Amino acid sequence: MSGHDETGSWFPVPDESALPDNLRGLFAKARERLGFVPNVFRVYSFRPERLSAWFAHYRQLHEPSEHLGAADREMIAVVVSVANGCLYCLVAHGAALRAELDDPVLGERISYDWRRAGLDARRSAICAYAEKLTLTPRDLTRADLQTLLDVGLTLEEAWDVAEIAAMYNLTNRMAMATNMLPNAEYSGQARPGGDTRT
Amino acid sequence: MSGHDETGSWFPVPDESALPDNLRGLFAKARERLGFVPNVFRVYSFRPERLSAWFAHYRQLHEPSEHLGAADREMIAVVVSVANGCLYCLVAHGAALRAELDDPVLGERISYDWRRAGLDARRSAICAYAEKLTLTPRDLTRADLQTLLDVGLTLEEAWDVAEIAAMYNLTNRMAMATNMLPNAEYSGQARPGGDTRT
Amino acid sequence: MSGHDETGSWFPVPDESALPDNLRGLFAKARERLGFVPNVFRVYSFRPERLSAWFAHYRQLHEPSEHLGAADREMIAVVVSVANGCLYCLVAHGAALRAELDDPVLGERISYDWRRAGLDARRSAICAYAEKLTLTPRDLTRADLQTLLDVGLTLEEAWDVAEIAAMYNLTNRMAMATNMLPNAEYSGQARPGGDTRT
Amino acid sequence: MSGHDETGSWFPVPDESALPDNLRGLFAKARERLGFVPNVFRVYSFRPERLSAWFAHYRQLHEPSEHLGAADREMIAVVVSVANGCLYCLVAHGAALRAELDDPVLGERISYDWRRAGLDARRSAICAYAEKLTLTPRDLTRADLQTLLDVGLTLEEAWDVAEIAAMYNLTNRMAMATNMLPNAEYSGQARPGGDTRT
Amino acid sequence: MSGHDETGSWFPVPDESALPDNLRGLFAKARERLGFVPNVFRVYSFRPERLSAWFAHYRQLHEPSEHLGAADREMIAVVVSVANGCLYCLVAHGAALRAELDDPVLGERISYDWRRAGLDARRSAICAYAEKLTLTPRDLTRADLQTLLDVGLTLEEAWDVAEIAAMYNLTNRMAMATNMLPNAEYSGQARPGGDTRT
Amino acid sequence: MSGHDETGSWFPVPDESALPDNLRGLFAKARERLGFVPNVFRVYSFRPERLSAWFAHYRQLHEPSEHLGAADREMIAVVVSVANGCLYCLVAHGAALRAELDDPVLGERISYDWRRAGLDARRSAICAYAEKLTLTPRDLTRADLQTLLDVGLTLEEAWDVAEIAAMYNLTNRMAMATNMLPNAEYSGQARPGGDTRT
Repeated sequence: MSGHDETGSWFPVPDESALPDNLRGLFAKARERLGFVPNVFRVYSFRPERLSAWFAHYRQLHEPSEHLGAADREMIAVVVSVANGCLYCLVAHGAALRAELDDPVLGERISYDWRRAGLDARRSAICAYAEKLTLTPRDLTRADLQTLLDVGLTLEEAWDVAEIAAMYNLTNRMAMATNMLPNAEYSGQARPGGDTRT
Repeated sequence: MSGHDETGSWFPVPDESALPDNLRGLFAKARERLGFVPNVFRVYSFRPERLSAWFAHYRQLHEPSEHLGAADREMIAVVVSVANGCLYCLVAHGAALRAELDDPVLGERISYDWRRAGLDARRSAICAYAEKLTLTPRDLTRADLQTLLDVGLTLEEAWDVAEIAAMYNLTNRMAMATNMLPNAEYSGQARPGGDTRT
Repeated sequence: MSGHDETGSWFPVPDESALPDNLRGLFAKARERLGFVPNVFRVYSFRPERLSAWFAHYRQLHEPSEHLGAADREMIAVVVSVANGCLYCLVAHGAALRAELDDPVLGERISYDWRRAGLDARRSAICAYAEKLTLTPRDLTRADLQTLLDVGLTLEEAWDVAEIAAMYNLTNRMAMATNMLPNAEYSGQARPGGDTRT
Repeated sequence: MSGHDETGSWFPVPDESALPDNLRGLFAKARERLGFVPNVFRVYSFRPERLSAWFAHYRQLHEPSEHLGAADREMIAVVVSVANGCLYCLVAHGAALRAELDDPVLGERISYDWRRAGLDARRSAICAYAEKLTLTPRDLTRADLQTLLDVGLTLEEAWDVAEIAAMYNLTNRMAMATNMLPNAEYSGQARPGGDTRT
Repeated sequence: MSGHDETGSWFPVPDESALPDNLRGLFAKARERLGFVPNVFRVYSFRPERLSAWFAHYRQLHEPSEHLGAADREMIAVVVSVANGCLYCLVAHGAALRAELDDPVLGERISYDWRRAGLDARRSAICAYAEKLTLTPRDLTRADLQTLLDVGLTLEEAWDVAEIAAMYNLTNRMAMATNMLPNAEYSGQARPGGDTRT
Repeated sequence: MSGHDETGSWFPVPDESALPDNLRGLFAKARERLGFVPNVFRVYSFRPERLSAWFAHYRQLHEPSEHLGAADREMIAVVVSVANGCLYCLVAHGAALRAELDDPVLGERISYDWRRAGLDARRSAICAYAEKLTLTPRDLTRADLQTLLDVGLTLEEAWDVAEIAAMYNLTNRMAMATNMLPNAEYSGQARPGGDTRT
């Protein structure tokens, strides 16, 4: 499996030591928490200020709330990434989703087809909304927003579903425009009987 | 994770003991080799003669040949299943592909996007052909066939690429028409550091 | 019109005399019943065991049942072939459909647009299901299955609608991957005031 | 087959005797030449001045020229109608195409898939252009126009390919918006061994 | 901005003086009413008889009626042109729509997305019908026609919605096949605080 | 035209006075520069920290560079917004594009169809890349990136094309998910002979 660890980037990838302090701190924290630096950080660090700005926005969107937990937010990331066909995000956020759900089978199923994964009404409504905003945003209506409120989300949480989905439409495209490849470590994370660290 | 073992079928699933001898033999062999009976067998056994006929055809297509090995044939199954979005086949044949490749990272990548998985020219040509035959069969030309011969396949192997892709267009649709769900066991198979039995 | 009788195949077509006994028997029976050997048999005989296996499965699917007769089964073949744009199957099964319906005008209409052909509720439900399973199989739900039961089909017959549609998704692709051309004889069969033998 | 002769129109169909002189003349001429009045005339006569204006434009486009004969012009009508899926035009102009080609097998093939009908380079270029102008007009470039000149068409004839294709994009939509059904007589016209009058 | 006044045509554009009397009259009237000759006239005059025939049909369709006024008819032209992505018609009929509505803001909005322009039920139904007839004509049903009658249109006006939409499917394609460019004058017409002559 | 000034938002729009200092400063600066507060600010201020984070990222992307000027960056915004059909961004960034180009006719043309707007090779390559990343990101290859370098962009500028396009895929979706409507003032900006303030 040697070779799977490259970032894949079509752009130059700077040496970590050349990065600004804040990014070196970010990399260090990731290494501590995950055991490695996600390739999205390495690849995006070609433009350090952009990485900082993107990440400052992105991280806000994964803060859990009462009716839209950490697993739900990863689920939106994965559903959008299926619709766009983004290899990097499906592997990396697929691993995070399996861990947050604490259910490797369900997490894997959502990464292929949320419609047949046996989700409850709340999660199905969230997935349907995120998929529609990704694939046919022009057709989105106020009735689609209402489906989120009807399953118990607050207006703020409904907004979050939209903003997370919108964010992964940005992130998926950055991953595909740079040819970002997922770190090999994700593949074994949160599998049945396997490594459960994420 | 209880609950993940149901077949999911929207049709009645017969008791194994009520099946004809040849199918009980098939189930027994599967249980011996895999440790469980794949849900495709259970679900399809609603029509025992159909299962026998389908499987007699299907099994021929997975016989390896010189330039189209067992992993290549699973790869075609997976690429067609991505194009059709078939949960059952992506999980079940994704596991088989990881095992046949002996590379869980590469196998997982192909199950999300073969184009970014770093395949060589032979495998890329096979994937491109199978995807095109699945998505826009009317546009297939003699030049597409030639791309398979150009990477070293014989005429018989080129035919096999087509017939395997065609077969999974049947199989994917049976899986989705019946709502077949993959056995939970597949998720942990052939993962990095995990269970490697397939 | 000379030239219309070639098989069109991009693969070698074996001489009939070189084929195994069972296939020579199949060809003889076809010649007796139709007056010619359908090109699908000639083309597929490049791989004799595959032809035998495919045909053994395929022929089961055209056995009529109480609420899904021979014409209905040809109708599914034609509707799937319209969705995939398969010249061979539209000509060959278009002829069979005209004959089984005993209505050359209706049969021709279905081969272009079943929605405007004036079909009754049972046939419309069958066509809608087969078209959806062909074009957007991932979107198929239990409610789609219910539409078949609601117009009087048994569970076995509903399964048959799915399996016939799935089979023609295989067959259409084999026809297009090999460039199979329909025998010229089909064009005149079961036309108003014309040859009615099929 | 009783019932196949209705126009199918969702709009009122005026009595022929109530129509203006010029249209009654048009109907009489059609009856003389074809043996019946095409349903397009009956249906469109709900708006007599529109029918006159449409037909005055339409008839200009079927005048044959040196490198774009009557059969070629019907071929464009049929190729556009396949792309739009227009039952009325496929049946009515399919019959005209079989007659103008004096080849019922080739005409039928073009009505299902021109790409596999074995057309020569000139006709293939014409079909490809008409199909592209129908399906993705925004993508049409000067290079597409050049393909028509390269196979020997004059600038006027290249314009005609475009204008005929554009006209059938109008006509197909009027047929589908009114639910126009083709006269049953077309089905038997210009078939092998059958009625050859068109 | 010099250069914006060319017709853009990929076909020869005849000198106005060489045109038949009726077309020179048409050009003169346009120059009098608009201050310039629309490029559609110049480009189409490569085939003078075709221009006359097309325009004789086209002009009938813009005659206002009680429940389908001049602005509504321009609105249909614009909605069809959005669906087809026709630059010429969006600029030229966008200007006409702003003027007929006497609302430059609303007219501009419709030229980008009628669904979010805040239209009333009657106009929304008309736009939805025209868009559907353009994009998926085969799916149009009698129920779609009924939506037009339900908002108060007569059968004749409902027919007009269909015929105008069908006509712009022709016109858009002629504009794109010839590479017709809109006259620069349209851009400033009927803008807030700007030139209001159309 | 009263009524065109509402934000259209399906979410609550906070009173400006209730916003954090930094956003009140942002609003004040906008009012000074444009004469009004863009509705995107008002609508997004339902989540003040999100607006701050999004805008901090977004503003970086509009900094002009040697081969990718302010007009080019607005052009990317508009091309992505055409592909997604985003009313808000087409009106607001359409105005900015007309102003930055100092060419109201060209700017309007790009907002409907960049392919027929007569752009030079550099701008055409940028538009083609942005459109592809928006519509079929999975198909983007290293060769697509090379097309940007071939017309003279640096690697950093090529990255910017991707990141701007990715950002508008986020922004378009936030605009459509909230039903953001463009301020009426944009319609008259930078028009021929009209108000040129942006």
